[in-house]
Amino acid sequence: MELTAIYHRPESEYAYLYKDGQLHIRIRTKKEDIKRIVLHYGDPFIFIEDLYEATKEMDKVTTDDLFDYWQVSVSVRHARIQYLFELEDTAGEKVLYGDRGVAAYTKENLDFVMNGFKLPFIHEIDGCAVPDWVAQTVWYQIFPERFANGNPAISPKGVRPWDASIAPQVLDFFGGDLQGIIDHLDYLQELGITGLYLCPIFESPSNHKYDTIDYFEIDRHFGDKETFRQLVKEAHARGMKIMLDAVFNHIGYDSPQWQDVVKYGEDSIYKDWFHIKEFPVSSENLWNSRDLSYHAFAFAGYMPKLNTANPEVKAYLLKVATYWIEEFDIDAWRLDVANEIDHQFWRDFRKSVLAKKPDLYILGEIWHSSQPWLKGDEFHAVMNYPLSESIKDYFLRRHKETQRFIWEINSQSMYYRQQISEVMFNLLDSHDTERILTTAKGDLQSVKSALAFLYLQRGTPCIYYGTELALIGGPDPDCRRVMPWERVAADNDMLNFMKDLIQLRKEVAGIIQHGKVSLEEVEPDVVAVEWQHEGHLLKAYFNHSKKAFVLERGQADLISHGTISDDRMVIQPNGFVIYREDW
Amino acid sequence: MELTAIYHRPESEYAYLYKDGQLHIRIRTKKEDIKRIVLHYGDPFIFIEDLYEATKEMDKVTTDDLFDYWQVSVSVRHARIQYLFELEDTAGEKVLYGDRGVAAYTKENLDFVMNGFKLPFIHEIDGCAVPDWVAQTVWYQIFPERFANGNPAISPKGVRPWDASIAPQVLDFFGGDLQGIIDHLDYLQELGITGLYLCPIFESPSNHKYDTIDYFEIDRHFGDKETFRQLVKEAHARGMKIMLDAVFNHIGYDSPQWQDVVKYGEDSIYKDWFHIKEFPVSSENLWNSRDLSYHAFAFAGYMPKLNTANPEVKAYLLKVATYWIEEFDIDAWRLDVANEIDHQFWRDFRKSVLAKKPDLYILGEIWHSSQPWLKGDEFHAVMNYPLSESIKDYFLRRHKETQRFIWEINSQSMYYRQQISEVMFNLLDSHDTERILTTAKGDLQSVKSALAFLYLQRGTPCIYYGTELALIGGPDPDCRRVMPWERVAADNDMLNFMKDLIQLRKEVAGIIQHGKVSLEEVEPDVVAVEWQHEGHLLKAYFNHSKKAFVLERGQADLISHGTISDDRMVIQPNGFVIYREDW
Repeated sequence: MELTAIYHRPESEYAYLYKDGQLHIRIRTKKEDIKRIVLHYGDPFIFIEDLYEATKEMDKVTTDDLFDYWQVSVSVRHARIQYLFELEDTAGEKVLYGDRGVAAYTKENLDFVMNGFKLPFIHEIDGCAVPDWVAQTVWYQIFPERFANGNPAISPKGVRPWDASIAPQVLDFFGGDLQGIIDHLDYLQELGITGLYLCPIFESPSNHKYDTIDYFEIDRHFGDKETFRQLVKEAHARGMKIMLDAVFNHIGYDSPQWQDVVKYGEDSIYKDWFHIKEFPVSSENLWNSRDLSYHAFAFAGYMPKLNTANPEVKAYLLKVATYWIEEFDIDAWRLDVANEIDHQFWRDFRKSVLAKKPDLYILGEIWHSSQPWLKGDEFHAVMNYPLSESIKDYFLRRHKETQRFIWEINSQSMYYRQQISEVMFNLLDSHDTERILTTAKGDLQSVKSALAFLYLQRGTPCIYYGTELALIGGPDPDCRRVMPWERVAADNDMLNFMKDLIQLRKEVAGIIQHGKVSLEEVEPDVVAVEWQHEGHLLKAYFNHSKKAFVLERGQADLISHGTISDDRMVIQPNGFVIYREDW
Repeated sequence: MELTAIYHRPESEYAYLYKDGQLHIRIRTKKEDIKRIVLHYGDPFIFIEDLYEATKEMDKVTTDDLFDYWQVSVSVRHARIQYLFELEDTAGEKVLYGDRGVAAYTKENLDFVMNGFKLPFIHEIDGCAVPDWVAQTVWYQIFPERFANGNPAISPKGVRPWDASIAPQVLDFFGGDLQGIIDHLDYLQELGITGLYLCPIFESPSNHKYDTIDYFEIDRHFGDKETFRQLVKEAHARGMKIMLDAVFNHIGYDSPQWQDVVKYGEDSIYKDWFHIKEFPVSSENLWNSRDLSYHAFAFAGYMPKLNTANPEVKAYLLKVATYWIEEFDIDAWRLDVANEIDHQFWRDFRKSVLAKKPDLYILGEIWHSSQPWLKGDEFHAVMNYPLSESIKDYFLRRHKETQRFIWEINSQSMYYRQQISEVMFNLLDSHDTERILTTAKGDLQSVKSALAFLYLQRGTPCIYYGTELALIGGPDPDCRRVMPWERVAADNDMLNFMKDLIQLRKEVAGIIQHGKVSLEEVEPDVVAVEWQHEGHLLKAYFNHSKKAFVLERGQADLISHGTISDDRMVIQPNGFVIYREDW
């Protein structure tokens, strides 16, 4: 038995309150090393003959290149649990594993109270609650300056013509605005979207608006508060949630706060709002300088970093966060550069916004693994870039072997508590990456496969505006091209594909969110995905090989990119099929 | 290479801000599997030719039965770090290990930005700051009812005579009080004590006072507020800190709040102060019933559990916590049953008390591994019972093999961030355990060895009142015997031993807190402890074997229980020596 591979930690994604009093207990062991794991558990204060009142077999729920992952769901009577793992390897050897590590499998060790792990008292308030609506949501990300120009009267001077063939430059403006979004809500509703994520809309000189000047104003070229109020109202009327982008890590160079520092230096009343190394603050090379006299986002001096540990700054930003909820009834905040702001700030942020709207969704922008932010006191979820990378590597870049791809997906499925996984923001591209069709070198079928795979993952899927119209674009700023509205047509294949996929996702969301999944390479480079939940079975096959894959089944209930004849379905290379069996 | 054994996690005890801008990065690998580890690190936003600006060799700092532990200290310029581990095994095979797991050792993988671990921005406010004074403190725990009766006029009715030969019963009172403590501050000062931990002193009917009736009053049999004020003042005048016991998990059955619930049931204004399953609240078998109609401490109905998630309860208890700081200038809170109270409560507790006194020490009573409470936002430390158990198993119960003992100590040394380890509350016994002399079946020499070993550990040592006078006692209530003052004498061997040990500890505290330690079984059942720090060397040998251990050294600088002749020191079984070499 490889004892060094065994891992468990209480009060983490390995032991937590899921929902309705159910506790999830997980453990990780070396791949194919352990045959059986039994959880011994009970109340820490009940000891009759044995220390533990009950036992339960654990399920091997998934596996990656190195590990098997086991899980069991238990409930307890007195809101307390003490537990110990009994592990048996393939050779029949048994050990106990608990708070003091590995111990020999003896009655004495089983009953020794200090060997047990504990969740000493299970408090709802420490649980990782998530808003109910998110798990059913299908998101659509809009970069407002490029989505639609609904009110040319407020477009910036020197605006460029709306022409999808123009690759935008850093300083280009095209005149997209909030009215443009309102004008296309019916389009989005028809597509099936139920959540809109808007990149920043507050006053800012840039086209991306991540350098805010005034957090309390809608950018003049995007509209005004009345337009925004109408947008929220119209979206809500269509069953769509609105998520805004909170850029709290840094402020704009032209903001009155920073300009005060530029002007008055050490005498500025705002000097403690920032992380300033020395005065006067330098102002040359605002785009990229390693020698800035203050902390900024990355080395971009035009976005000076806010000192969120300063109570004044915190109060100001929390006021911003609650203002847009109270006054405009927004449903979610996406938190820009969330990993660079202090945890204390985010804890207070969560308290403040949930006090105003208990089911508000809090989504952090973090690209790496994010356990420290997802413990129930900061965010509900993060943008799931690790998933994006795995899917893109496999389907679009074709970099990755099938087995490795499966292992990565499996491994990521164990990153977080399950309720967090259910509301993870699953995406493939965004305003910060190249567009997937470009990553796929124009191969639309691969993009469809990648999206279909994404929509079958636990979490809440998002597409970036224009994906449904096969929009291309390289890295920023090219990924921010204008929406090619001229492509909207009843027979637009990609648009219809997205509608079907979104419809499918809505029908099977419950199976995916709450079911058990398995991924398997059933033939070389053919991935089978299977979800099971309460008598329902959802299956998919993705053919990543160079030859046709034949499935002995004559019916494509949902979406297929195979051809059906008699009782066989032929899935061509790059094709896939998704179908459902209810028993 | 055993890849499954490799473990690291950012923002945990494996990667954290230590002090003065120094970051500690640790990693765990399978024992004796890895030859060399190099940390590649740099700013996440600087990428010239290579992704990482610098490399640094890691030190193998300790080892246990299964793992080697590696550590390196680094500092960065821009408060951000991205890093990746390069591991080389004994066969010369190399891999990279980062946020996406293990990757082949290639330039491409080294430069792939998503492979890196990150501390995205290092905020002081999220650091694990600890009060400076604690690491130098030598603690003494007092169970006030049994320490000294300084004011017989306020003793409870039916008080028993002060006679150290009486084994106390659960309901016994002996009349110990605060004046008794004041009267013996000189004694404690002479002993060398610099911190007093007092078990609860607030109004309560029991002798242990863990069932509080009024958190704002000193128990009438202990004294009054003026007596307590004088105690704090006199202690401070002698350079001693005062730590009180905060019993916030539960309240006393006789408290007005609970009595209101007993009387008015669902109509009580205090009904939401508790965790009540059904009304009326049952009141039979208050000592131990599994069928209580409310949550209590364990199943002890006379200590109903407080609902600390209720903002009213929280406000009340935080008022208690700050009252005794503001009005009486206490220096520390020991938190009873700390693991059963919600984390949100403790976060607010920390903020409230540190706002009143920034260097207050917050110590949680937790018996198991306690990472979830020691991340910098709740406690500074916990009562280090895992260390107690290891030392008692080895020195007193003689249950444990020497090598396993060393491994346990080593393993525990990696449980927490180093600054936390420096202020861990290291103890061998308390009011909740049997006394060490009883555990040792009366063998005083073993007790001395155990204490000497304890005093050589990183952390802040505590003795339980009477230990220095060889007081015995089995489990609660027998461990709460009266202080045998009649034994105090200039030639009391144990008392003099403790004075010497405390004096030694004060002289070498800096070496222990900040140095590098190694434990080695130099001969069968002989443990060598060696601390090194800035040119200082502290050494100790503990002879756990059945024959004399001879050390070729003619000088016992500090404490020895060996005999010295010429240039040899003979350490008898059960003996030890501690000496210092400065180079």
